[in-house]
Amino acid sequence: MSTLMVNATDPRAVPAAVRALARSGELDHHTAGMAAGYAQANLAILPRALAYEFLLFCQRNPKPCPLLDVTDAGSPEPRLVAPGADLRTDLPRYRVYRHGVLVDEPTDIVRLWRDDLVAFLLGCSYTFEAPMVEAGIAVRHLDCGRNVPMYRTNRACVPAGRIAGPLVVSFRAIPATQVARAVQVTSRFPAVHGAPVHIGDPESLGIRDLASPDWGDPPVIEPGDVPVFWACGVTPQAVAMTIKPELMITHSPGYMFVTDVPIASLAVG
Amino acid sequence: MSTLMVNATDPRAVPAAVRALARSGELDHHTAGMAAGYAQANLAILPRALAYEFLLFCQRNPKPCPLLDVTDAGSPEPRLVAPGADLRTDLPRYRVYRHGVLVDEPTDIVRLWRDDLVAFLLGCSYTFEAPMVEAGIAVRHLDCGRNVPMYRTNRACVPAGRIAGPLVVSFRAIPATQVARAVQVTSRFPAVHGAPVHIGDPESLGIRDLASPDWGDPPVIEPGDVPVFWACGVTPQAVAMTIKPELMITHSPGYMFVTDVPIASLAVG
Repeated sequence: MSTLMVNATDPRAVPAAVRALARSGELDHHTAGMAAGYAQANLAILPRALAYEFLLFCQRNPKPCPLLDVTDAGSPEPRLVAPGADLRTDLPRYRVYRHGVLVDEPTDIVRLWRDDLVAFLLGCSYTFEAPMVEAGIAVRHLDCGRNVPMYRTNRACVPAGRIAGPLVVSFRAIPATQVARAVQVTSRFPAVHGAPVHIGDPESLGIRDLASPDWGDPPVIEPGDVPVFWACGVTPQAVAMTIKPELMITHSPGYMFVTDVPIASLAVG
Repeated sequence: MSTLMVNATDPRAVPAAVRALARSGELDHHTAGMAAGYAQANLAILPRALAYEFLLFCQRNPKPCPLLDVTDAGSPEPRLVAPGADLRTDLPRYRVYRHGVLVDEPTDIVRLWRDDLVAFLLGCSYTFEAPMVEAGIAVRHLDCGRNVPMYRTNRACVPAGRIAGPLVVSFRAIPATQVARAVQVTSRFPAVHGAPVHIGDPESLGIRDLASPDWGDPPVIEPGDVPVFWACGVTPQAVAMTIKPELMITHSPGYMFVTDVPIASLAVG
């Protein structure tokens, strides 16, 4: 993997090194497991004309939409979470949507950038999986090298203006003896979705078939596991799509933005 | 006190009863201690044209500006924290600022309301004082019936557009043996300022004379107390004033909005 070529003696240099590899085009890989110990983020870029509604939606739905940073209009620099970084180049792959339709999946967005674009970085549950593993909690999709399963639910988010839609959740099957510990560990990280929104009954969330997620890979479930659901960062992108913005740019799923924020610094309580 | 006249057998009716008294004009008193167990909130109302900058400022400075609710433009109803309430009438007293100058302190703002106004409700540290007292922590200003002391610091908030300015902190002198417990208890309430921002050294915050706060009453400090500072909800109002908005309406200090949100429901971790 490309990160093995990074000769970083200062651990704080690791996120910058991953971003530099993405910027140079050498890194065309999902970022799971890279820059261990640092928070990764979902990216959503919208025109300023839609930014207030989107920001309000995030404020009203903090569990699926935990904002880590919002850039000034026209600036591609996330000054709070990675000063000096450039959101036009520093992710390995992007998705470009026009009027709600995916039109391109480029490795940079330099030629698409505009003075009226605002970038939103939102916490990602990748971030709390490391503390879960450290706490001895089985995270089955990591053990199997799969992507986390994600589902649309029957729970409506609180709308903001024209932005409305259902809550999306990520799923982890947790051994019954470890469910309480999983709640405790993830509760400490409200900036990256926090505690589960639902434990134990997929049907009451409107999920009929766990084996067929709406995004990600099918789940791995062992006997004695309990289904546990967390609010998911796919929610804001999926919901923003309901207003078919003339332009919306996101990260490509799994190809996240690596921030300079140590995971431990996000812990509360 | 007027609330003694409220005959509410359902404890959930208490916040609505306090608001009804304010609405009828019978309640002209600060709200400290009223509707015990329910979160109270700071109010800031701004024209929609300034709302994005203010919302962005709050997002970038979550410790002084923990948003509990933001209304739709033109709607005086805080649908998340008190559905059915009316922010034009349900606080005991308001302050009206035009171009940064205090021009009126009315008991309702019905005639000032406009279709482009957006109301922001922000968490208030009154809310975490009840859990502190329950945890056996001495809260000296409460014991003495005084208002909490508040100070401008030398720490700059992260600016958003034209909105910029210093962090304002509230102060509590805590017995040295209880400082750690005070951190633990308030850490559980990030929605109402959370953990202290500073413990032990007023001068390094640029506070030269604790006896002369910028807002509130002088502090009560006992031998062996340690100075502890929390981010304060006065910050967003003070900072919004730096752009001299053509109209800004706030609550009158101490005359807060009483929400339907149980304090316990705000606890994390």
